[in-house]
Amino acid sequence: MAKASTPEAFNRHQIEHLVRRAVYERMGLALPRSVEAPNPLVVNSSARHCHLTQEAVETLFGEGHQFTPMKWLYQEGQYAAEETVTLIGPRSKVISNLRILGPCRSLNQVELSFTDARSLGFDIPVRQSGKIEGTPGCMLMGPKGFFEMPSGVIRAAIHVHMSPTDAQFYGVEHEQMMNLRVHGPCQTVFEKVLVRVDPAFKLEVHMDTDESNGCGLNPSTYCELFL
Amino acid sequence: MAKASTPEAFNRHQIEHLVRRAVYERMGLALPRSVEAPNPLVVNSSARHCHLTQEAVETLFGEGHQFTPMKWLYQEGQYAAEETVTLIGPRSKVISNLRILGPCRSLNQVELSFTDARSLGFDIPVRQSGKIEGTPGCMLMGPKGFFEMPSGVIRAAIHVHMSPTDAQFYGVEHEQMMNLRVHGPCQTVFEKVLVRVDPAFKLEVHMDTDESNGCGLNPSTYCELFL
Repeated sequence: MAKASTPEAFNRHQIEHLVRRAVYERMGLALPRSVEAPNPLVVNSSARHCHLTQEAVETLFGEGHQFTPMKWLYQEGQYAAEETVTLIGPRSKVISNLRILGPCRSLNQVELSFTDARSLGFDIPVRQSGKIEGTPGCMLMGPKGFFEMPSGVIRAAIHVHMSPTDAQFYGVEHEQMMNLRVHGPCQTVFEKVLVRVDPAFKLEVHMDTDESNGCGLNPSTYCELFL
Repeated sequence: MAKASTPEAFNRHQIEHLVRRAVYERMGLALPRSVEAPNPLVVNSSARHCHLTQEAVETLFGEGHQFTPMKWLYQEGQYAAEETVTLIGPRSKVISNLRILGPCRSLNQVELSFTDARSLGFDIPVRQSGKIEGTPGCMLMGPKGFFEMPSGVIRAAIHVHMSPTDAQFYGVEHEQMMNLRVHGPCQTVFEKVLVRVDPAFKLEVHMDTDESNGCGLNPSTYCELFL
Protein backbone atom coordinates (compact mmCIF):
# COMPACT_ATOMS: atom_id res chain seq x y z
CA MET A 1 0.00 0.00 0.00
CA ALA A 2 1.25 3.46 -0.84
CA LYS A 3 2.09 5.68 2.07
CA ALA A 4 -1.21 7.45 2.17
CA SER A 5 -1.51 11.19 2.25
CA THR A 6 -4.69 12.39 3.89
CA PRO A 7 -6.24 15.74 2.94
CA GLU A 8 -4.34 17.19 5.97
CA ALA A 9 -1.03 15.90 4.56
CA PHE A 10 -1.87 17.58 1.28
CA ASN A 11 -2.25 20.86 3.11
CA ARG A 12 1.04 20.30 4.90
CA HIS A 13 2.93 19.99 1.58
CA GLN A 14 1.29 23.11 0.20
CA ILE A 15 1.94 25.06 3.40
CA GLU A 16 5.58 24.01 3.60
CA HIS A 17 6.02 25.04 -0.01
CA LEU A 18 4.49 28.48 0.60
CA VAL A 19 6.49 29.04 3.79
CA ARG A 20 9.73 28.04 2.07
CA ARG A 21 9.04 30.51 -0.72
CA ALA A 22 8.18 33.31 1.74
CA VAL A 23 11.37 32.69 3.75
CA TYR A 24 13.58 32.91 0.64
CA GLU A 25 11.84 36.10 -0.49
CA ARG A 26 12.05 37.67 2.99
CA MET A 27 15.77 36.97 3.12
CA GLY A 28 16.22 38.49 -0.31
CA LEU A 29 17.63 35.25 -1.69
CA ALA A 30 17.11 33.95 -5.21
CA LEU A 31 14.51 31.19 -5.21
CA PRO A 32 16.00 27.74 -5.82
CA ARG A 33 14.32 25.92 -8.68
CA SER A 34 12.34 23.64 -6.33
CA VAL A 35 10.96 26.64 -4.43
CA GLU A 36 10.06 28.49 -7.63
CA ALA A 37 8.00 25.50 -8.79
CA PRO A 38 4.23 25.97 -9.07
CA ASN A 39 3.58 22.95 -6.82
CA PRO A 40 5.37 21.19 -3.97
CA LEU A 41 7.16 17.97 -4.88
CA VAL A 42 5.81 14.99 -2.96
CA VAL A 43 7.75 11.71 -3.07
CA ASN A 44 5.97 8.61 -1.80
CA SER A 45 6.93 4.98 -1.47
CA SER A 46 4.43 2.32 -2.54
CA ALA A 47 4.61 -1.04 -0.84
CA ARG A 48 3.36 -4.07 -2.77
CA HIS A 49 -0.26 -3.78 -3.85
CA CYS A 50 -2.68 -4.70 -6.62
CA HIS A 51 -5.24 -3.09 -8.89
CA LEU A 52 -8.28 -5.18 -9.85
CA THR A 53 -11.13 -5.18 -12.33
CA GLN A 54 -14.72 -5.29 -11.03
CA GLU A 55 -14.91 -8.85 -12.45
CA ALA A 56 -11.93 -9.98 -10.37
CA VAL A 57 -13.34 -8.27 -7.29
CA GLU A 58 -16.63 -10.13 -7.64
CA THR A 59 -14.86 -13.48 -8.09
CA LEU A 60 -12.72 -12.84 -5.00
CA PHE A 61 -15.23 -11.04 -2.73
CA GLY A 62 -18.68 -11.97 -4.10
CA GLU A 63 -21.19 -10.54 -6.55
CA GLY A 64 -21.68 -6.79 -6.49
CA HIS A 65 -18.91 -6.27 -3.91
CA GLN A 66 -17.78 -2.65 -3.46
CA PHE A 67 -14.53 -1.65 -1.69
CA THR A 68 -14.45 0.16 1.63
CA PRO A 69 -11.81 2.91 1.39
CA MET A 70 -9.36 2.69 4.31
CA LYS A 71 -6.96 5.52 3.47
CA TRP A 72 -7.17 8.19 0.79
CA LEU A 73 -4.02 8.57 -1.29
CA TYR A 74 -2.44 11.79 -2.52
CA GLN A 75 -3.84 11.45 -6.06
CA GLU A 76 -7.49 12.56 -6.15
CA GLY A 77 -10.00 9.71 -5.77
CA GLN A 78 -7.39 6.98 -5.21
CA TYR A 79 -7.47 4.95 -2.02
CA ALA A 80 -6.11 1.92 -0.21
CA ALA A 81 -9.08 -0.39 0.40
CA GLU A 82 -9.86 -2.21 3.63
CA GLU A 83 -9.85 -5.35 1.47
CA THR A 84 -6.73 -7.43 0.87
CA VAL A 85 -6.05 -10.64 -1.05
CA THR A 86 -3.60 -13.49 -0.72
CA LEU A 87 -1.10 -13.87 -3.57
CA ILE A 88 0.11 -17.38 -4.39
CA GLY A 89 3.37 -17.36 -6.28
CA PRO A 90 4.98 -19.83 -8.68
CA ARG A 91 6.62 -21.97 -5.98
CA SER A 92 3.44 -22.00 -3.85
CA LYS A 93 4.94 -19.29 -1.68
CA VAL A 94 2.41 -16.83 -0.42
CA ILE A 95 2.02 -13.15 0.40
CA SER A 96 -0.91 -12.55 2.73
CA ASN A 97 -2.66 -9.22 3.09
CA LEU A 98 -1.74 -7.84 -0.31
CA ARG A 99 -3.41 -4.43 -0.22
CA ILE A 100 -5.86 -3.51 -2.99
CA LEU A 101 -5.82 0.05 -4.30
CA GLY A 102 -9.13 1.40 -5.55
CA PRO A 103 -11.14 2.28 -7.48
CA CYS A 104 -11.37 -0.66 -9.92
CA ARG A 105 -9.41 -0.49 -13.16
CA SER A 106 -9.75 -2.05 -16.60
CA LEU A 107 -6.94 -4.55 -15.94
CA ASN A 108 -5.53 -6.63 -13.12
CA GLN A 109 -2.02 -5.76 -12.01
CA VAL A 110 0.16 -6.74 -9.05
CA GLU A 111 3.06 -4.44 -8.17
CA LEU A 112 5.87 -6.05 -6.16
CA SER A 113 9.36 -4.96 -5.21
CA PHE A 114 12.32 -7.11 -6.32
CA THR A 115 12.70 -8.07 -2.63
CA ASP A 116 9.12 -9.42 -2.65
CA ALA A 117 9.59 -11.10 -6.03
CA ARG A 118 12.77 -12.82 -4.89
CA SER A 119 11.16 -14.15 -1.72
CA LEU A 120 8.25 -15.52 -3.78
CA GLY A 121 10.47 -17.03 -6.49
CA PHE A 122 9.21 -14.71 -9.24
CA ASP A 123 11.36 -13.23 -11.95
CA ILE A 124 9.50 -10.04 -12.78
CA PRO A 125 10.23 -7.24 -15.23
CA VAL A 126 10.27 -3.49 -14.61
CA ARG A 127 7.25 -2.04 -16.41
CA GLN A 128 5.25 1.11 -16.71
CA SER A 129 1.80 0.60 -15.12
CA GLY A 130 -0.60 -0.97 -17.64
CA LYS A 131 2.13 -2.37 -19.92
CA ILE A 132 1.78 -5.96 -18.74
CA GLU A 133 2.11 -7.93 -21.99
CA GLY A 134 4.35 -10.95 -21.51
CA THR A 135 4.67 -10.51 -17.75
CA PRO A 136 4.21 -13.41 -15.32
CA GLY A 137 0.86 -14.14 -13.74
CA CYS A 138 -0.20 -15.44 -10.34
CA MET A 139 -3.17 -16.80 -8.40
CA LEU A 140 -5.10 -14.51 -6.06
CA MET A 141 -7.25 -15.81 -3.22
CA GLY A 142 -10.09 -13.88 -1.60
CA PRO A 143 -12.77 -14.80 0.93
CA LYS A 144 -15.19 -15.93 -1.80
CA GLY A 145 -12.92 -17.50 -4.39
CA PHE A 146 -9.77 -17.70 -6.46
CA PHE A 147 -8.90 -15.50 -9.42
CA GLU A 148 -6.13 -16.46 -11.81
CA MET A 149 -4.17 -13.67 -13.45
CA PRO A 150 -2.47 -15.00 -16.61
CA SER A 151 -0.12 -11.99 -16.53
CA GLY A 152 0.24 -8.66 -14.74
CA VAL A 153 2.86 -9.17 -12.02
CA ILE A 154 5.40 -6.37 -12.42
CA ARG A 155 7.81 -4.13 -10.64
CA ALA A 156 6.40 -0.69 -11.42
CA ALA A 157 8.96 1.68 -12.92
CA ILE A 158 9.62 4.76 -10.79
CA HIS A 159 7.41 7.55 -12.17
CA VAL A 160 6.17 11.04 -11.51
CA HIS A 161 2.58 12.20 -11.83
CA MET A 162 2.22 15.81 -12.88
CA SER A 163 -0.20 18.32 -14.33
CA PRO A 164 0.46 20.13 -17.64
CA THR A 165 1.50 23.20 -15.53
CA ASP A 166 4.18 21.14 -13.77
CA ALA A 167 5.30 19.61 -17.09
CA GLN A 168 5.73 23.07 -18.54
CA PHE A 169 7.73 24.25 -15.52
CA TYR A 170 10.11 21.28 -15.69
CA GLY A 171 10.23 21.33 -19.50
CA VAL A 172 9.13 17.72 -19.93
CA GLU A 173 6.47 15.82 -21.84
CA HIS A 174 4.28 12.82 -21.13
CA GLU A 175 6.32 9.56 -21.14
CA GLN A 176 9.67 11.37 -21.16
CA MET A 177 12.32 10.39 -18.56
CA MET A 178 13.75 12.77 -15.98
CA ASN A 179 15.96 12.65 -12.86
CA LEU A 180 15.07 12.67 -9.18
CA ARG A 181 17.72 13.42 -6.55
CA VAL A 182 16.94 12.22 -3.03
CA HIS A 183 19.24 14.01 -0.57
CA GLY A 184 20.51 12.70 2.77
CA PRO A 185 23.14 10.24 3.98
CA CYS A 186 22.38 7.81 1.10
CA GLN A 187 22.06 10.52 -1.56
CA THR A 188 20.81 8.96 -4.77
CA VAL A 189 19.76 10.07 -8.24
CA PHE A 190 17.11 8.02 -10.05
CA GLU A 191 17.86 8.71 -13.70
CA LYS A 192 14.87 7.05 -15.36
CA VAL A 193 11.85 8.61 -13.71
CA LEU A 194 8.96 8.25 -16.15
CA VAL A 195 6.85 11.38 -16.55
CA ARG A 196 3.05 10.92 -16.62
CA VAL A 197 1.10 14.06 -17.42
CA ASP A 198 -2.63 14.47 -16.81
CA PRO A 199 -4.68 17.52 -15.83
CA ALA A 200 -6.04 15.54 -12.86
CA PHE A 201 -2.59 14.66 -11.46
CA LYS A 202 -0.93 16.26 -8.44
CA LEU A 203 2.88 16.45 -8.52
CA GLU A 204 4.02 13.19 -6.92
CA VAL A 205 6.81 10.67 -7.46
CA HIS A 206 6.00 7.02 -6.79
CA MET A 207 8.88 4.71 -6.00
CA ASP A 208 8.75 1.24 -4.47
CA THR A 209 10.05 0.09 -1.08
CA ASP A 210 13.38 -1.17 -2.47
CA GLU A 211 14.06 2.26 -3.90
CA SER A 212 12.86 4.17 -0.81
CA ASN A 213 14.79 1.92 1.57
CA GLY A 214 17.82 2.06 -0.72
CA CYS A 215 17.95 5.87 -0.67
CA GLY A 216 16.72 6.19 2.94
CA LEU A 217 13.65 8.25 1.99
CA ASN A 218 11.64 9.64 4.89
CA PRO A 219 8.88 12.27 5.09
CA SER A 220 11.35 15.13 5.68
CA THR A 221 13.88 14.15 2.98
CA TYR A 222 14.64 16.95 0.51
CA CYS A 223 14.10 15.80 -3.08
CA GLU A 224 14.45 17.55 -6.43
CA LEU A 225 13.38 16.77 -9.98
CA PHE A 226 15.63 17.84 -12.85
CA LEU A 227 16.33 17.11 -16.49
CA MET B 1 26.05 -12.82 3.15
CA ALA B 2 27.92 -11.05 0.38
CA LYS B 3 27.53 -12.52 -3.07
CA ALA B 4 30.70 -14.51 -2.97
CA SER B 5 33.26 -14.33 -5.70
CA THR B 6 35.33 -17.45 -6.04
CA PRO B 7 38.87 -17.36 -7.47
CA GLU B 8 37.25 -18.31 -10.83
CA ALA B 9 34.96 -15.26 -10.64
CA PHE B 10 37.99 -13.10 -10.03
CA ASN B 11 39.51 -14.41 -13.24
CA ARG B 12 36.25 -13.77 -15.10
CA HIS B 13 36.31 -10.07 -14.15
CA GLN B 14 39.93 -9.69 -15.19
CA ILE B 15 39.38 -11.53 -18.45
CA GLU B 16 36.28 -9.50 -19.34
CA HIS B 17 38.23 -6.35 -18.64
CA LEU B 18 41.12 -7.40 -20.88
CA VAL B 19 38.80 -8.52 -23.69
CA ARG B 20 36.84 -5.28 -23.53
CA ARG B 21 40.07 -3.29 -23.83
CA ALA B 22 41.32 -5.42 -26.75
CA VAL B 23 38.00 -5.00 -28.61
CA TYR B 24 38.09 -1.22 -28.31
CA GLU B 25 41.72 -1.11 -29.46
CA ARG B 26 41.06 -3.47 -32.37
CA MET B 27 38.14 -1.31 -33.52
CA GLY B 28 40.32 1.78 -33.29
CA LEU B 29 37.97 3.36 -30.76
CA ALA B 30 39.03 5.61 -27.87
CA LEU B 31 38.95 3.66 -24.62
CA PRO B 32 36.08 4.71 -22.34
CA ARG B 33 37.29 5.64 -18.88
CA SER B 34 36.08 2.36 -17.35
CA VAL B 35 38.01 0.34 -19.94
CA GLU B 36 41.14 2.43 -19.49
CA ALA B 37 41.10 1.70 -15.73
CA PRO B 38 43.90 -0.42 -14.31
CA ASN B 39 41.42 -2.87 -12.78
CA PRO B 40 37.89 -4.12 -13.56
CA LEU B 41 35.12 -2.63 -11.45
CA VAL B 42 33.23 -5.27 -9.49
CA VAL B 43 29.96 -4.29 -7.77
CA ASN B 44 28.56 -6.72 -5.22
CA SER B 45 25.49 -6.75 -3.04
CA SER B 46 25.87 -7.82 0.60
CA ALA B 47 22.86 -9.36 2.29
CA ARG B 48 22.58 -8.98 6.07
CA HIS B 49 25.55 -10.44 7.95
CA CYS B 50 27.71 -9.96 11.01
CA HIS B 51 31.36 -9.68 11.97
CA LEU B 52 32.37 -11.09 15.36
CA THR B 53 35.27 -11.01 17.79
CA GLN B 54 36.91 -14.29 18.84
CA GLU B 55 35.41 -13.72 22.31
CA ALA B 56 31.86 -13.53 20.88
CA VAL B 57 32.49 -16.61 18.74
CA GLU B 58 33.56 -18.62 21.78
CA THR B 59 30.50 -17.51 23.78
CA LEU B 60 28.19 -18.45 20.90
CA PHE B 61 29.92 -21.58 19.56
CA GLY B 62 32.12 -22.84 22.42
CA GLU B 63 35.71 -22.41 23.59
CA GLY B 64 38.36 -22.35 20.87
CA HIS B 65 35.81 -22.52 18.07
CA GLN B 66 37.18 -21.77 14.60
CA PHE B 67 35.00 -20.94 11.57
CA THR B 68 34.63 -23.24 8.59
CA PRO B 69 34.81 -21.09 5.44
CA MET B 70 31.84 -21.80 3.15
CA LYS B 71 32.49 -19.32 0.32
CA TRP B 72 35.50 -17.12 -0.35
CA LEU B 73 34.65 -13.49 -1.07
CA TYR B 74 36.25 -11.20 -3.63
CA GLN B 75 38.47 -9.42 -1.07
CA GLU B 76 41.53 -11.53 -0.29
CA GLY B 77 41.15 -13.73 2.83
CA GLN B 78 37.49 -12.79 3.50
CA TYR B 79 34.85 -15.50 3.58
CA ALA B 80 31.27 -16.34 4.44
CA ALA B 81 31.43 -18.93 7.22
CA GLU B 82 29.34 -22.09 7.45
CA GLU B 83 28.28 -20.76 10.87
CA THR B 84 25.25 -18.55 11.36
CA VAL B 85 23.62 -16.98 14.42
CA THR B 86 20.10 -15.98 15.37
CA LEU B 87 19.54 -12.27 15.91
CA ILE B 88 16.92 -11.24 18.46
CA GLY B 89 15.67 -7.70 17.89
CA PRO B 90 14.13 -5.10 20.20
CA ARG B 91 10.55 -6.39 19.86
CA SER B 92 11.63 -10.02 20.28
CA LYS B 93 11.42 -10.44 16.53
CA VAL B 94 14.05 -12.74 15.16
CA ILE B 95 16.27 -13.23 12.11
CA SER B 96 17.47 -16.82 11.85
CA ASN B 97 20.54 -17.86 9.91
CA LEU B 98 22.33 -14.52 10.05
CA ARG B 99 25.51 -15.28 8.13
CA ILE B 100 28.89 -14.63 9.79
CA LEU B 101 31.71 -13.22 7.68
CA GLY B 102 35.22 -14.25 8.69
CA PRO B 103 37.89 -13.94 9.80
CA CYS B 104 37.24 -12.54 13.30
CA ARG B 105 37.54 -8.78 13.83
CA SER B 106 38.28 -6.54 16.80
CA LEU B 107 34.60 -5.53 17.15
CA ASN B 108 31.15 -7.00 16.80
CA GLN B 109 28.99 -5.53 14.07
CA VAL B 110 25.68 -6.52 12.48
CA GLU B 111 24.92 -5.10 9.03
CA LEU B 112 21.22 -5.01 8.08
CA SER B 113 19.28 -3.39 5.27
CA PHE B 114 16.52 -0.91 6.12
CA THR B 115 14.04 -3.58 4.97
CA ASP B 116 15.48 -5.98 7.58
CA ALA B 117 15.58 -3.28 10.25
CA ARG B 118 11.98 -2.31 9.63
CA SER B 119 10.75 -5.90 9.86
CA LEU B 120 12.64 -6.32 13.15
CA GLY B 121 11.47 -3.00 14.62
CA PHE B 122 14.96 -1.46 14.69
CA ASP B 123 15.71 2.15 13.89
CA ILE B 124 19.31 1.93 12.66
CA PRO B 125 21.69 4.57 11.35
CA VAL B 126 23.78 4.51 8.18
CA ARG B 127 27.42 4.13 9.24
CA GLN B 128 30.82 3.41 7.85
CA SER B 129 31.99 -0.05 8.98
CA GLY B 130 33.62 0.19 12.42
CA LYS B 131 32.00 3.51 13.39
CA ILE B 132 29.43 2.01 15.72
CA GLU B 133 29.40 4.49 18.62
CA GLY B 134 25.86 5.25 19.74
CA THR B 135 24.26 2.62 17.48
CA PRO B 136 21.63 0.16 18.75
CA GLY B 137 22.61 -3.27 20.05
CA CYS B 138 20.96 -6.67 19.92
CA MET B 139 21.12 -10.19 21.32
CA LEU B 140 22.77 -12.97 19.32
CA MET B 141 22.05 -16.63 19.93
CA GLY B 142 24.37 -19.47 18.95
CA PRO B 143 24.35 -23.22 19.62
CA LYS B 144 26.38 -22.77 22.83
CA GLY B 145 25.06 -19.53 24.27
CA PHE B 146 23.87 -15.96 24.00
CA PHE B 147 26.02 -12.90 23.33
CA GLU B 148 24.72 -9.43 23.97
CA MET B 149 25.97 -6.62 21.74
CA PRO B 150 25.44 -3.27 23.51
CA SER B 151 25.81 -1.53 20.14
CA GLY B 152 26.92 -2.31 16.58
CA VAL B 153 23.74 -2.78 14.54
CA ILE B 154 24.07 -0.56 11.46
CA ARG B 155 23.20 -0.15 7.86
CA ALA B 156 26.62 -0.09 6.22
CA ALA B 157 27.15 2.95 3.99
CA ILE B 158 27.75 2.05 0.34
CA HIS B 159 31.53 2.01 -0.17
CA VAL B 160 34.25 1.08 -2.61
CA HIS B 161 37.41 -0.84 -1.76
CA MET B 162 40.40 0.13 -3.87
CA SER B 163 44.17 -0.04 -4.04
CA PRO B 164 46.35 3.11 -4.17
CA THR B 165 46.72 2.48 -7.94
CA ASP B 166 42.93 2.62 -8.39
CA ALA B 167 42.70 5.71 -6.15
CA GLN B 168 45.29 7.47 -8.30
CA PHE B 169 43.42 6.54 -11.51
CA TYR B 170 40.10 7.87 -10.19
CA GLY B 171 41.73 10.87 -8.49
CA VAL B 172 40.33 10.11 -5.05
CA GLU B 173 41.66 9.69 -1.53
CA HIS B 174 40.82 7.43 1.40
CA GLU B 175 37.46 8.39 2.98
CA GLN B 176 36.47 10.71 0.13
CA MET B 177 33.03 10.31 -1.49
CA MET B 178 32.50 9.50 -5.15
CA ASN B 179 29.63 8.50 -7.50
CA LEU B 180 28.61 5.13 -8.85
CA ARG B 181 26.25 4.87 -11.83
CA VAL B 182 24.43 1.55 -12.23
CA HIS B 183 23.02 1.32 -15.75
CA GLY B 184 19.91 -0.56 -16.89
CA PRO B 185 16.14 -0.08 -16.73
CA CYS B 186 16.35 1.39 -13.18
CA GLN B 187 19.43 3.51 -13.86
CA THR B 188 20.66 5.00 -10.60
CA VAL B 189 23.57 7.11 -9.36
CA PHE B 190 24.74 6.59 -5.79
CA GLU B 191 26.31 9.93 -4.92
CA LYS B 192 27.89 9.13 -1.56
CA VAL B 193 30.07 6.11 -2.20
CA LEU B 194 32.75 6.10 0.49
CA VAL B 195 36.25 5.40 -0.80
CA ARG B 196 38.39 2.99 1.26
CA VAL B 197 41.98 2.69 0.09
CA ASP B 198 44.35 -0.09 1.13
CA PRO B 199 47.15 -1.81 -0.78
CA ALA B 200 45.46 -5.16 -0.06
CA PHE B 201 42.09 -4.14 -1.56
CA LYS B 202 40.71 -5.23 -4.92
CA LEU B 203 38.45 -2.73 -6.70
CA GLU B 204 34.95 -3.57 -5.46
CA VAL B 205 31.83 -1.65 -4.51
CA HIS B 206 29.73 -3.06 -1.67
CA MET B 207 26.08 -2.09 -1.54
CA ASP B 208 23.27 -3.71 0.44
CA THR B 209 20.23 -5.59 -0.84
CA ASP B 210 17.92 -2.55 -0.69
CA GLU B 211 20.31 -0.67 -2.92
CA SER B 212 20.92 -3.58 -5.32
CA ASN B 213 17.20 -4.41 -5.57
CA GLY B 214 16.38 -0.73 -5.92
CA CYS B 215 18.70 -0.29 -8.91
CA GLY B 216 18.12 -3.79 -10.33
CA LEU B 217 21.80 -4.80 -10.11
CA ASN B 218 22.67 -8.15 -11.65
CA PRO B 219 25.99 -9.77 -12.54
CA SER B 220 26.01 -8.35 -16.08
CA THR B 221 24.95 -4.77 -15.19
CA TYR B 222 27.34 -2.11 -16.50
CA CYS B 223 28.54 0.16 -13.69
CA GLU B 224 30.90 3.14 -13.60
CA LEU B 225 32.64 5.10 -10.87
CA PHE B 226 33.15 8.84 -11.33
CA LEU B 227 33.87 11.98 -9.36
